[in-house]
Amino acid sequence: MPQTIAFTKGQGTGNDFILLPDPDGELDLSDAQVAALCDRRFGIGADGILRVVRTPAILDGHQAAADGAEWFMDYRNADGSPAEMCGNGIRVYVRYLLETGLAELPVDGSLLIGTRAGVKRVSRPDEHLEVDLGEWRTEEDEVLVRAKGLPVARPGLSVDVGNPHVVVALSGPDELDGLDLAVQPILDPAPRDGANIEFVVPSDPLVHHGVGSIRLRVFERGVGETLSCGTGVAAAALAVRHWAGAAAPDRWTVDVPGGTLSVRMVDGRVLLSGPASLVFSGQVALA
Amino acid sequence: MPQTIAFTKGQGTGNDFILLPDPDGELDLSDAQVAALCDRRFGIGADGILRVVRTPAILDGHQAAADGAEWFMDYRNADGSPAEMCGNGIRVYVRYLLETGLAELPVDGSLLIGTRAGVKRVSRPDEHLEVDLGEWRTEEDEVLVRAKGLPVARPGLSVDVGNPHVVVALSGPDELDGLDLAVQPILDPAPRDGANIEFVVPSDPLVHHGVGSIRLRVFERGVGETLSCGTGVAAAALAVRHWAGAAAPDRWTVDVPGGTLSVRMVDGRVLLSGPASLVFSGQVALA
Repeated sequence: MPQTIAFTKGQGTGNDFILLPDPDGELDLSDAQVAALCDRRFGIGADGILRVVRTPAILDGHQAAADGAEWFMDYRNADGSPAEMCGNGIRVYVRYLLETGLAELPVDGSLLIGTRAGVKRVSRPDEHLEVDLGEWRTEEDEVLVRAKGLPVARPGLSVDVGNPHVVVALSGPDELDGLDLAVQPILDPAPRDGANIEFVVPSDPLVHHGVGSIRLRVFERGVGETLSCGTGVAAAALAVRHWAGAAAPDRWTVDVPGGTLSVRMVDGRVLLSGPASLVFSGQVALA
Repeated sequence: MPQTIAFTKGQGTGNDFILLPDPDGELDLSDAQVAALCDRRFGIGADGILRVVRTPAILDGHQAAADGAEWFMDYRNADGSPAEMCGNGIRVYVRYLLETGLAELPVDGSLLIGTRAGVKRVSRPDEHLEVDLGEWRTEEDEVLVRAKGLPVARPGLSVDVGNPHVVVALSGPDELDGLDLAVQPILDPAPRDGANIEFVVPSDPLVHHGVGSIRLRVFERGVGETLSCGTGVAAAALAVRHWAGAAAPDRWTVDVPGGTLSVRMVDGRVLLSGPASLVFSGQVALA
């Protein structure tokens, strides 16, 4: 008799996740079981799994427990491998905690969530959830980016937001729409661990009422083009702000194929906010 | 307050469907609602929807009711448009009827299911479900098929199994695997309503213990390459049997990217059987 488990499916700007409630850490899924659940034809289908577990109940969560986080986001990629953080996933995760009553988040408060990239602070400044991604780092060394649809290689800016990104400015919407990201772009020199690549164009005007506005497409390492990448959105806003110089704003709106996200820079930290919703709940038999 | 409905997700060789129980025909989904449910990121995700409705409760089902079918498969494509029949979908549909107790099917009996392509008879000769697709028709006029990855155009055989197919024999597995079906193949002359295209190679040996064996990839009109196409599998077996001549067997095993199906020819009718399973059940709020 196969084990049947309860799940909820959620998404943020088209990045989608299977939430598995497991407060006491009793669910030990193999990589094959995670892959079967994430299969879009033979399983539930998702970019990854977010196991909802209390920090003391997971080995990776002991430091997070000590740091005051009650819940740990045990995020695994669709192939079963453990993942560190996801700017879209953590909003979906907190939305789940709130809608199921497992946690509370007053409008003027915040919630600490344990992740493999450390404890993250999530707040609710408006109808959206906002996550503090922490400090960032830009590299001065230039990277050249070649992509199908671009006549010549373009310089990219390396931005680290917990994970590595290369951001490339394009000349306009036509160039962005004309990119063929079914073909993997080439970075020169190639970063040791690879990098996600964001192709970005300014809106017209770039800054309106003190808020910057850009649009991007993203190629995620090991995945391909995706509808959205939370940390990539933050990296792209940081790169365009860097290029724009001293007068650049600290608030940005970023359009991605899966929706719209907002980025703020506060005291050397970058914060990401945007929509996150639960789509359906059900029961599935584990293979 | 949005309406919440119960659903079950099922699949057959990777063709996947959302089953919506609606015995009394009270559920009137707009095209936009169907598309939202079938969206693989923002909804449940599926190739289409199978509404489970009693024949008298749907306008299209009155003839089926007269012909003795209790249940009608109201099949709609992922864009909301009504569809006629699906060789994989009907097995998933009957599996649902059986597992929920809405119908019974003894090993030596059969079940009549109303569809927009007429009443179909489903039986259970072994652990799989088998559907009688009815009579077929081959066209003598040759069609040329051009596909990316093929050095020259190849002749195809037109086979009608309720819907139109063109079947093309390739030289071997390397040629099949080398096809680039991200690019739509071209038919010359182009059939008025288009056609699904099956690229097929024989197994080695072609016939073993009286059973023929082939492998194929399929390009579905308006969709692109898919993991499986039930009627395409039947059309491909019929074409290879046609080419093999008088001594060809009446039983075939067909490997598709999503699994394995079986085809039988009996008294001028073609029958398709294969796996079909229910994957998960849940509740979803209608948009």
